[in-house]
Amino acid sequence: MATYRLDIAYDGSAFRGWAKQEGLRTVQAEIEDALGRLFGAPTQLTVAGRTDAGVHASGQVASFSAEKAPPEDLRRALNALTPADIAITEAAPAAPGFDARRQAISRRYRYRLLLGPVPSPFERHFAMHCSYRLDRGLLDAAAAQIVGTHDFTAFTPTDTEHVRFERHILDAGWHGPDPGAGGAEEILSFEVEADAFMRNMVRVLVGTMLEIGTGRRDPDSLGTLLSGRPRPEAGETAPAHGLFLIGVRYP
Amino acid sequence: MATYRLDIAYDGSAFRGWAKQEGLRTVQAEIEDALGRLFGAPTQLTVAGRTDAGVHASGQVASFSAEKAPPEDLRRALNALTPADIAITEAAPAAPGFDARRQAISRRYRYRLLLGPVPSPFERHFAMHCSYRLDRGLLDAAAAQIVGTHDFTAFTPTDTEHVRFERHILDAGWHGPDPGAGGAEEILSFEVEADAFMRNMVRVLVGTMLEIGTGRRDPDSLGTLLSGRPRPEAGETAPAHGLFLIGVRYP
Repeated sequence: MATYRLDIAYDGSAFRGWAKQEGLRTVQAEIEDALGRLFGAPTQLTVAGRTDAGVHASGQVASFSAEKAPPEDLRRALNALTPADIAITEAAPAAPGFDARRQAISRRYRYRLLLGPVPSPFERHFAMHCSYRLDRGLLDAAAAQIVGTHDFTAFTPTDTEHVRFERHILDAGWHGPDPGAGGAEEILSFEVEADAFMRNMVRVLVGTMLEIGTGRRDPDSLGTLLSGRPRPEAGETAPAHGLFLIGVRYP
Repeated sequence: MATYRLDIAYDGSAFRGWAKQEGLRTVQAEIEDALGRLFGAPTQLTVAGRTDAGVHASGQVASFSAEKAPPEDLRRALNALTPADIAITEAAPAAPGFDARRQAISRRYRYRLLLGPVPSPFERHFAMHCSYRLDRGLLDAAAAQIVGTHDFTAFTPTDTEHVRFERHILDAGWHGPDPGAGGAEEILSFEVEADAFMRNMVRVLVGTMLEIGTGRRDPDSLGTLLSGRPRPEAGETAPAHGLFLIGVRYP
């Protein structure tokens, strides 16, 4: 058996997320189907970040084991077998025993906001349109508070299956505004890197920071929320289509 | 009667082009429907550049006349009434008699190429994937030859309805590569500005230059083509989804 690493990008718009679910279109199912055809045997992927329905990825990583030797250009073969909303950006043998999930040190996400009063046909699937005024100073101060080790109970659904709600945030900050896909858009991005994330965590962090940035929420309340308050005390869950998994770090 | 100017962006993927056609989804029909509802009377748009099916615009301009006073925020009202693949980026009263088509001095188009072997889920509707090697020197030299006044008979379908095949090219050149929508892509762009364009003209120019850039066509043949040769002597028509109308110039 050999171990392989895949680097993957996908437009999450038409997927019910990464994880395989009977009868639903998922990224995992599409790539495992392609691998099964290529290696001639059922192949199971281990993934660094299980993204939710509608969430995109430009830097997802997955690993798998397979018996047969891979085709000479594994990446090209996989791209030919997967649909156009998935791209395998790298595909190669990895160190024996490489596990994309367990060996990941951290995951990095980006949440994109389209600023200003005008919607964008080119960004409508890739950024949340935010037409109200945001106080950048308040946003930056909120992001800075998130860095460190906190209890994120308030930032994941109450029915979540996690047993440990502490996460270690290595980096969090707002970037831009930068031009968007049509050239004229202003895109403000929140980037956050952590050892691991819980379900909806980035989206609830963004939703809560937007309430702070518009003056609807006391900036000081964030520190309290990060000490393990219940979910209803935090803000709205920002929509899935603004979120991208942009990278995974390994030792 | 008052005259109005609209600046318009659209994702052309799901439209049969700009111009209204019975029973087909077009940009003109969608916006005229919205204007009709807003002004309470049938309203006809005059457009700077009639884009073909699948072609996008970030800087389209159209004008219309209407009797009634516009709502206070015309842009906002129109964006609420048009579908999400159209955005009205500006909407305002214009000088009396303003005509978006006749008064335009020039139109500017951009054709986007995704370079390299890896496809992109984020660029699949907005750039032609070009995985073969291109000689940038040959591309630049070809673009430089296009500038000036030439007979573009070779660059538009033979069944075209034009009576005059001369066009004056004010600017033509390759730009980038720049990062694409997913961040990792390399996007090479051809931009061209002319007094007016014929049907498919930018796409045949790009298709012909790609043959030159890959060494499949003699670079010197371009000068001959620009002197009024028949359509079959030029290159393939590059796909519609890489093309954007990015701006229109007025006095």
